[in-house]
Amino acid sequence: MVDRTPHVVIVGAGFGGLRAARALARAPVRVTLVDRKNYHLFQPFLYQVATAALSPADIAQPVRAILRKQHNLEFNLSEVQQVDLEKRRLVTDTGDILYDYLILAMGGQTNSFGIESIARNAHGLKDIDDSVGIRNHILRMFELAALESDLDRCRAMRTFVIAGGGPTGVECSGAISELVRLVLKKDYPGLNINDVRIILLEGASQLLAGMPSQLSEYTEKALWSKHVEVHFNSMVTGYDGSQISLKGGEVIPACTLIWAAGVRASRLADTLGTSQTRLGQLEVDETLHLHEYPEVYVIGDAAAFPNENGQPLPMVAPVAMQQAKVAARNIQRAIQGKLPEKFIYRDPGSLATIGRNAAVARLGRWQFTGFIAWLLWLGVHILQLIGFRNRLVVLINWAWDYLFYDRPIRLITPE
Amino acid sequence: MVDRTPHVVIVGAGFGGLRAARALARAPVRVTLVDRKNYHLFQPFLYQVATAALSPADIAQPVRAILRKQHNLEFNLSEVQQVDLEKRRLVTDTGDILYDYLILAMGGQTNSFGIESIARNAHGLKDIDDSVGIRNHILRMFELAALESDLDRCRAMRTFVIAGGGPTGVECSGAISELVRLVLKKDYPGLNINDVRIILLEGASQLLAGMPSQLSEYTEKALWSKHVEVHFNSMVTGYDGSQISLKGGEVIPACTLIWAAGVRASRLADTLGTSQTRLGQLEVDETLHLHEYPEVYVIGDAAAFPNENGQPLPMVAPVAMQQAKVAARNIQRAIQGKLPEKFIYRDPGSLATIGRNAAVARLGRWQFTGFIAWLLWLGVHILQLIGFRNRLVVLINWAWDYLFYDRPIRLITPE
Repeated sequence: MVDRTPHVVIVGAGFGGLRAARALARAPVRVTLVDRKNYHLFQPFLYQVATAALSPADIAQPVRAILRKQHNLEFNLSEVQQVDLEKRRLVTDTGDILYDYLILAMGGQTNSFGIESIARNAHGLKDIDDSVGIRNHILRMFELAALESDLDRCRAMRTFVIAGGGPTGVECSGAISELVRLVLKKDYPGLNINDVRIILLEGASQLLAGMPSQLSEYTEKALWSKHVEVHFNSMVTGYDGSQISLKGGEVIPACTLIWAAGVRASRLADTLGTSQTRLGQLEVDETLHLHEYPEVYVIGDAAAFPNENGQPLPMVAPVAMQQAKVAARNIQRAIQGKLPEKFIYRDPGSLATIGRNAAVARLGRWQFTGFIAWLLWLGVHILQLIGFRNRLVVLINWAWDYLFYDRPIRLITPE
Repeated sequence: MVDRTPHVVIVGAGFGGLRAARALARAPVRVTLVDRKNYHLFQPFLYQVATAALSPADIAQPVRAILRKQHNLEFNLSEVQQVDLEKRRLVTDTGDILYDYLILAMGGQTNSFGIESIARNAHGLKDIDDSVGIRNHILRMFELAALESDLDRCRAMRTFVIAGGGPTGVECSGAISELVRLVLKKDYPGLNINDVRIILLEGASQLLAGMPSQLSEYTEKALWSKHVEVHFNSMVTGYDGSQISLKGGEVIPACTLIWAAGVRASRLADTLGTSQTRLGQLEVDETLHLHEYPEVYVIGDAAAFPNENGQPLPMVAPVAMQQAKVAARNIQRAIQGKLPEKFIYRDPGSLATIGRNAAVARLGRWQFTGFIAWLLWLGVHILQLIGFRNRLVVLINWAWDYLFYDRPIRLITPE
C-alpha cells in the first residue's frame, strides 16, 4: 500500500521553518524538516556569544527537542545542495528527498558583495561558529597584544572595526565596547584603555536605516558615549587581515574586521534557476509561491516579497514567521482544493540595543529610547527564546553581567 | 636598575599550577603562569560535556578572572615547547621565558600506548575539544543511523565502546547510557532501544582499581542495571574507525571508541632529558624537585612521586594540589636559605559516580554506595568548581536533567 498522504518538505529550522512546521501539526500531511544543523538558533543573540556573555547552547535548541510532540513530523539532518523543481526533489548530502509541497526557509548568509579579501579575512556573524570565532579572536588579540613589543602592531591588535550600521553592527559594537571597558580592563591591569579603538563604519549617513531619525540619532550618541567611533559614508573596499581600505583612500590598521554590512539569500536559492533579486532572493508572487510552481513556497530571508513601495521586505524574524503561517495555510488550502490567500505583512515595530540601559524601540506610532526601550528589548527577546532552561540561564548570565560587570564565557576555545 | 626579585615560572593552570600560584601570592617573588589555554578546566566534568549535560563554559574559568587580585602574578598565554634546564629558560611559541625557579605542572595527556590506529580513530577525553568532539560524534551517529538502511552499519553506529574501567570510563559509560535511554530515546520515536549497545572494556578483572572490592562490585552491578555491558580482561589492540580488535581475536563492529584506558605525562616532560617513568612522568626526589636541579619542581600528573609501596601516586587532583603547596613553600624556603620540606601525601579518599542516585565513595575507613555516595560526590564536586556563577549554572543544569530527564546541550557544533 502506498502512502498517499501529501509530503511537505521544509528546508531550514530557523524562525520561518520552525513556525511553518508547527502550523502543519494538525494538517493531513507528512512533514519532513531538513536542516544541516541539528538545532534552531536564536540569531538575535549571536552577538552576545561573540562578546562572551552567553554560551552557544544558551541560544540554540535541538530541533528534535522542540518538535518532539509533533507526530506527523520527521527531522532530517542533511545539507540540501540543490532544488530540482521539475522532478520535485531535493538533492542532499545524504540522498534525495521527494516532495509534494516544498517550503523553502533556508534563510540568508553573509554577503561580502564579491570582495574576496573581505570574504577571506573578515568575520561574519550569521552562525554559532562565526560568533565563537569572533569571541576567540577578540580575546586572542588581547593576549597577543600583552606579549607584543611593537607599538604599531599592538595598536592594530587593539583596534576592532565593525562594518555596517544596522542592528547587528550597532549591537555588536556596543557589546564589544562594554566587554573591553567594563570587563577586560580588569583582566589586563597594565592596559591603557585609550589604546583600544572600536570603530563602527556605516556606508550611508544614518545608523539603523528604516528607524525614525530621532532613534538613529540617539543610537549614534549612545555609541559615542561608549567610546565607539561612528564613521558615516565609509565603504570598505578591501581587507588584508591587518589593514582595512576604505573608498576614498583612507586606511585603518586593524587586526579585526567584523562584517555586518550585508546579508544575501542562502546560496541554495541560486540552484533553482528562477528569477532572483540582486541579493539572491527568490521572487515570489503575492501568495508566497514561486511563479509557475504553485507547490513551492519561499519564506523569510530567502524570499523577495515587495512591500507597498516595491522594496523587498526586510530580512527579519517577524516577516519569516508571518509568512510561515500563510505558506502553511496555503498548502492546506491547496489540498482542500481552495485558492491560496495573499500575504500581508503587519509590521510589529523594531528594537535594537546599544548596551546597558540603552536601547531604541519603535512600536507602531510609539518611540522609546534609553532604559524603557532596554527593558522592552529584554522582555521581547527573552520571551522569543525557546525553552524554559535557556531563558533561565540567559537571565542569570545577564543578571551576573549587569551586577558584576563580568562576561563569564571569555574562553579561547579550539576551532 | 635590575629587578632582583626572584622569578618563579609555573607551567600549567590546572589544579596544581593554580594552587601553586595562589600559594605564592604573598611571597617576595614575581610569578609568571604559562598555559596554552586561557582557562582553568575542571577536568572531572569533561564527561558531562561529552554527554550533553553541561556547556564547556560551565566547567572552565578564565585564568585572568581567577587570579585577577594577585598582584605579583602575570599570565602568559603560550605553549611551552621545551624546557632548557641548563640555561634556565622555557622555549615557547611566543618567545623565551627565563626563570629562577620553575614549577612544572603541565599535567597529562591521553596515552594510546603507541597504537597508532587508536591515536588516530579513538576519542580521548582530556580537554574541551575532546569532550565536545565526543558529544558531536554521539549525536551525529544517531542522526546518521536514522537515515541508514544497512542494518549492520546501523548497529555499528549505535554501538558505543569505552575502553578503561577507571573513574573516567565508568562515569562516561554510565552517562552515555542515561543520555541514550532517558533522553535520546524520546528524540527518536522509531528507535528500538535494544539496538543500542554500550560496552565498557577493562583490561584487568576489576573496575575502579584501587577502590575496595565491594565498591568495584557495586559499580559493576550498577552499570549492568543501566544496560552497560562490562567486559573484563579485554585489551584493545587496534581500531580502524569501524571495527575494534581485541587481544584474543574478538572483533566488535563500532563507530565509536572512547579511550579512557591510559594517561601519560604531557609530552613536554620528554624535552628535559632527565629520567622518566614508563608513563613519561619525571622522577623527583622526596622534596619534589628534579634530582640535580633544586630550582625545578614537578607536581601533579607529570611527577613520579612514589607512595609507600614504591608505586607512583595516582594522577588525581588531590595529589597535584597537595604537592603544589609544598613546592611553593619549598621555593620560599630556598629564598630564605632554608632546607626544603619533604612531601607526604594524605589520601582524602576517592569518589566515582555511575549515574542518577548511584555512586561509590571511599573516605578514610568509610565506604558508601548508592544515593548517599551520590550526594557526597555531588557536594564535593560542586564545592571544588571555581566561581559562583558556574556552580549555579551547573546546579540548574543538573536539576533540569534530574527532574525532566533532559540533556539540553545536545548540539552538533562545528569543530
